Amino acid sequence: MTVTAARGFLASGVSAGIKSSGDPDLALVVNRGPAPAAAGVFTSNRIQAAPVRWSRQVLAGGTVTAVVLNSGGANACTGPAGADDARTMAGQTALALGIAPEEVAVCSTGLIGVPLPMDRVTAGIALAAARLTSDGGRDAAVAIRTTDSVHKTAVASRSGWTVGGMAKGAGMLAPGLATMLVVLTTDAVADAPLLDTALRAAVRTTFDRVDSDGCMSTNDTVLLLASGASGVTPSAADLTEAVHAVCLDLARQLIADAEGASKEIEIAVVGAASEDDAVTVGRSVARNNLLKCALHGEDPNWGRVLSAIGTTDAVFDPDRLDVAVNGVWVCRDGAAGEPREKVDLTGRRVTITVDLRSGEASAEIWTNDLTAAYVHENSAYSS
Amino acid sequence: MTVTAARGFLASGVSAGIKSSGDPDLALVVNRGPAPAAAGVFTSNRIQAAPVRWSRQVLAGGTVTAVVLNSGGANACTGPAGADDARTMAGQTALALGIAPEEVAVCSTGLIGVPLPMDRVTAGIALAAARLTSDGGRDAAVAIRTTDSVHKTAVASRSGWTVGGMAKGAGMLAPGLATMLVVLTTDAVADAPLLDTALRAAVRTTFDRVDSDGCMSTNDTVLLLASGASGVTPSAADLTEAVHAVCLDLARQLIADAEGASKEIEIAVVGAASEDDAVTVGRSVARNNLLKCALHGEDPNWGRVLSAIGTTDAVFDPDRLDVAVNGVWVCRDGAAGEPREKVDLTGRRVTITVDLRSGEASAEIWTNDLTAAYVHENSAYSS
Repeated sequence: MTVTAARGFLASGVSAGIKSSGDPDLALVVNRGPAPAAAGVFTSNRIQAAPVRWSRQVLAGGTVTAVVLNSGGANACTGPAGADDARTMAGQTALALGIAPEEVAVCSTGLIGVPLPMDRVTAGIALAAARLTSDGGRDAAVAIRTTDSVHKTAVASRSGWTVGGMAKGAGMLAPGLATMLVVLTTDAVADAPLLDTALRAAVRTTFDRVDSDGCMSTNDTVLLLASGASGVTPSAADLTEAVHAVCLDLARQLIADAEGASKEIEIAVVGAASEDDAVTVGRSVARNNLLKCALHGEDPNWGRVLSAIGTTDAVFDPDRLDVAVNGVWVCRDGAAGEPREKVDLTGRRVTITVDLRSGEASAEIWTNDLTAAYVHENSAYSS
Repeated sequence: MTVTAARGFLASGVSAGIKSSGDPDLALVVNRGPAPAAAGVFTSNRIQAAPVRWSRQVLAGGTVTAVVLNSGGANACTGPAGADDARTMAGQTALALGIAPEEVAVCSTGLIGVPLPMDRVTAGIALAAARLTSDGGRDAAVAIRTTDSVHKTAVASRSGWTVGGMAKGAGMLAPGLATMLVVLTTDAVADAPLLDTALRAAVRTTFDRVDSDGCMSTNDTVLLLASGASGVTPSAADLTEAVHAVCLDLARQLIADAEGASKEIEIAVVGAASEDDAVTVGRSVARNNLLKCALHGEDPNWGRVLSAIGTTDAVFDPDRLDVAVNGVWVCRDGAAGEPREKVDLTGRRVTITVDLRSGEASAEIWTNDLTAAYVHENSAYSS
């Protein structure tokens, strides 16, 4: 049900022929109210795709009645013609739905630098508009996949109201502010400032803590649409909690499906002087190719963890660093601790705990191992 | 001849049994004067190996008469016992040569976190001291190899004087201040401040521009020893030029031999507002795993170049970025330029030119592609 789990929303997903494979590649999500409101966060990459630039303006305008999304092409680095294409997608969607183009957010994903086949996109939008239903959420989630091996959806049901969502993303996963394409919906009654607060709070500790391959996308967008159809007005805390739960679920699904990954790795940094320090250290460890290779080979190579920590400006004493791999403290006081032979790395889930012993703050970053399959997937063809 | 190309130096390399393979693993370089002086730069990683900590003190003392180097173990993250071991290596070398321990720099490379087998190291030092010769430079260069597939040496001969050097390094190549193990020698007459100036100037645009895999070592050391044996006192400019030539040669050899690499990639950033901007952009592009995979697959994927540029804080306008791959300007004004089909990526050497169109500064960063062979080499066993 995903984005249509919350009342007041219609969705659809169709094959527009943008992908040469013929797989579904165009999705619509429509907010029918009665009390529509929206919030969004976008990539902090300074190279921003045309649909990101367009959707920022739509959000600033205050009303998001529909979202049109396509896979098969990112419409990024496409110049003035790409800006025209994003505007045309909004215009065609508005025409089909009888609303204004300025109410239509646009999300695209796929290869950078290639123009969209606009004749197919336009025909696909008309088809998708004709197929909108109150249980079209799954079809929409399927249609936004690129290298995703599965579609990603999540739902949090609360008393009388619901938050649902869908996401796509399998590579180029290293958000600055937001990441990937994500559409969240709720039938709660909430105004735009409240939605914005809830969304930013949720994203900060979910999508912003995902770092699969250190590569930040040009198209990352997370939208949260409220319809008010439940008639329930949750507290800010309750809304944030539910949005966070859905974001967390989707973020975990993204890491689980990362390109070529054989391990899902959680870098838990504790004892940090500040949360910023914890995030900085976690991200540095998560981006260390040598460590990611070692974990792929099931080698608890804590030396590579320390060499990554050492490149940061976080507060720590090199001779008072502890590192555990799957609960075994293989590094104590910056040197060898318990025997590495005790570490069991045969499972898919790996937890690396770094204790900076410099304070009370902590953070978790989620990443993957680096595998020959990742190299193959990203070298054998353009993506 | 390498470090013994310059007069006044002796060297040797032996098998001490530190490596289980029985390959050479211990080297000595001795400065016989008559006017000895030295300079050195070390890793800026805050996790610094015991030999790095020791050698910093030796440099600060002002006299470096000998350098003892071992492969087969980094003596990094080894706690107080590791500090003792580094001091013992200096002490044993001093004993064999009849000098003070405080005149002996120590360099180690290999696996992090494992203590050195000091009985074998001690015996190896005695053996290496007995084998010192004025043409032992090649043996020394061979003995400091770890995953290096070839040994690396370089010589610059000038009128009446010479600079020679050796280097090791094939992975964990991303220097902060210096990188890898490098010993340079010259028979020029030069005092320590002049050597320091020449070395820092040379390293800044050679080793500091190497970024094979974004991973900074705990053991990086570059030493420059002068004997004065030529009797020639070159100008500061001439000395810097010769040291730079040797550093450049060695840096290129490091990239050429990087683990698993099938491409040597030069990221040339031009039109930058400052050299710092150019380096920042070059390093960001060089560290983009998706681009490195694409180049391995011989795909001129300029979109991945732009997405990497966009993560930096350098001065540029997203709509005025040009990118060439092997001379073909596939991206103009932040969008598609000449046809990507024109790009020939079949050769081993690749040049990516980024024109930020924001100033006159430039810099080059040298990197490699990311291959399944790199993953294999760094996951199949500890290194």
